[in-house]
Amino acid sequence: MSAINRLCIIGVGLIGGSLALALKQAGAVGSVIGVGRGLANLQAAVRLGVIDEFSHEPAIGVRGADMVVLAVPVGTTAQVCEQIRDHLSPSAVLTDVGSVKGEVVAQVKSAFGEIPANFVPGHPIAGTEKSGAAAAFAELYRDRKVLLTPLTETSEAALKQVEQMWQAAGAVVETMEVEHHDAVLAVTSHLPHMLAFGLVDSLARMEASDEIFRYAAGGFRDFTRIASSDPVMWRDICIHNKRALLAAMERFESELAELREAIAGGDADRLTTIFSRAKAARDRFSG
Amino acid sequence: MSAINRLCIIGVGLIGGSLALALKQAGAVGSVIGVGRGLANLQAAVRLGVIDEFSHEPAIGVRGADMVVLAVPVGTTAQVCEQIRDHLSPSAVLTDVGSVKGEVVAQVKSAFGEIPANFVPGHPIAGTEKSGAAAAFAELYRDRKVLLTPLTETSEAALKQVEQMWQAAGAVVETMEVEHHDAVLAVTSHLPHMLAFGLVDSLARMEASDEIFRYAAGGFRDFTRIASSDPVMWRDICIHNKRALLAAMERFESELAELREAIAGGDADRLTTIFSRAKAARDRFSG
Repeated sequence: MSAINRLCIIGVGLIGGSLALALKQAGAVGSVIGVGRGLANLQAAVRLGVIDEFSHEPAIGVRGADMVVLAVPVGTTAQVCEQIRDHLSPSAVLTDVGSVKGEVVAQVKSAFGEIPANFVPGHPIAGTEKSGAAAAFAELYRDRKVLLTPLTETSEAALKQVEQMWQAAGAVVETMEVEHHDAVLAVTSHLPHMLAFGLVDSLARMEASDEIFRYAAGGFRDFTRIASSDPVMWRDICIHNKRALLAAMERFESELAELREAIAGGDADRLTTIFSRAKAARDRFSG
Repeated sequence: MSAINRLCIIGVGLIGGSLALALKQAGAVGSVIGVGRGLANLQAAVRLGVIDEFSHEPAIGVRGADMVVLAVPVGTTAQVCEQIRDHLSPSAVLTDVGSVKGEVVAQVKSAFGEIPANFVPGHPIAGTEKSGAAAAFAELYRDRKVLLTPLTETSEAALKQVEQMWQAAGAVVETMEVEHHDAVLAVTSHLPHMLAFGLVDSLARMEASDEIFRYAAGGFRDFTRIASSDPVMWRDICIHNKRALLAAMERFESELAELREAIAGGDADRLTTIFSRAKAARDRFSG
């Protein structure tokens, strides 16, 4: 692959920071400039070797960069794009890591007036419940999927460069359509987060909730780990993937109502059928 | 503590087997006899040093035992108790590991005609999604909670012996009332299992579900691990803890409906409030 000379990461958190670290470890990048608002986070990122230098200004950060990665909340995409629009090198490739591709594409289009040929929407299916540059680690993307959702306007060359970048970071790259991406993520990621947040919140609102949490075991811990995720990021995902997420939630509510009816009616066979089908799917998928 | 001379474990699976291993490792038991139906499982248990000998007959297994642990599905409690009733040593202590104490107590009472003074209902808050004697390991209970729900009929001496047994296995013992136990477990364990089974099943029932599961990431894996649990055991828990579980499900359904409304209405503040409260509770509880 052609290595990246100068990489600009806008938003130096777990996702952007881990990409920078992985590319450095692979020798696939010359220098990395990080752009962000929090001084302490950026200083930590330099100290930890995640980035080489930083700026608070996106317009300065992208100067001379041949690859620009937006790793900011989806809702700030248009604003950041407006700030960098007139400062990008003509040959620079622009990509992002947002969880909702439809919204990112819409915001990029509104900021640029059209979809730039060098823009490649992307989404690494990786993460932890932690955030910030200090949480970044080079192995985050190893053998993880990265979904790219190129548009008709996207140039082959730009797509290839983003693909090679993620492969250098250890990821397995696949492409799919924007709408399909958002529907799949709604059921595999966004809905589970709603259930985990909802469960923990419903317990937190109970009387004597502290006592109740004391008796939660390992299964509950695993189940609710994702409820430690960043509330603001998840608020944005809900708002930006509203249609697909609502459809997923409604489907789940029907399933839960069916389960509740089976329990209320003491329908042992129906319960066994549901639990067995779920177990078989889970074992097949995780095996 | 006074060590157990002869321990009878009825049901040599993950839970019963791990208790036997832990007590052996602690030098807190003389010999262990396992009772079960599956020959291969019992033979494996002997080979792995989980038990010393076995019988298919509960009535034979309990002979001469000073401690009898029922580690069978909750629904078979009465049947097993009827089989052992006339063969227990008068001084033998009887305890169980069932997830629903109200039902266990009812079945013990129906089999014995009254609550025996030597009976101590118990429930170790530990487990994995695996089952069978081969999955047993001595450390399963280390620093885990075991909840005992003694009744007015329960003798102090029997309670103390069961408490000491679990402490020897590394557990932290607490006592609570039967009804409170079942309500707490409904929200911390039974409800999360319903959500995990329900989520995986709703995905498994979708068209192209195999493709969808391919894009599930680590968060989904953690979240759905408990959907690999034994369907028959969970069917029984649903049936035996019906009232508390239905109440927990209804509370959760209201929470989810509130979340769905906030998403549908684009209510960013409400979403942030819910997610932040959940994250704070989760972080406090796991911290």
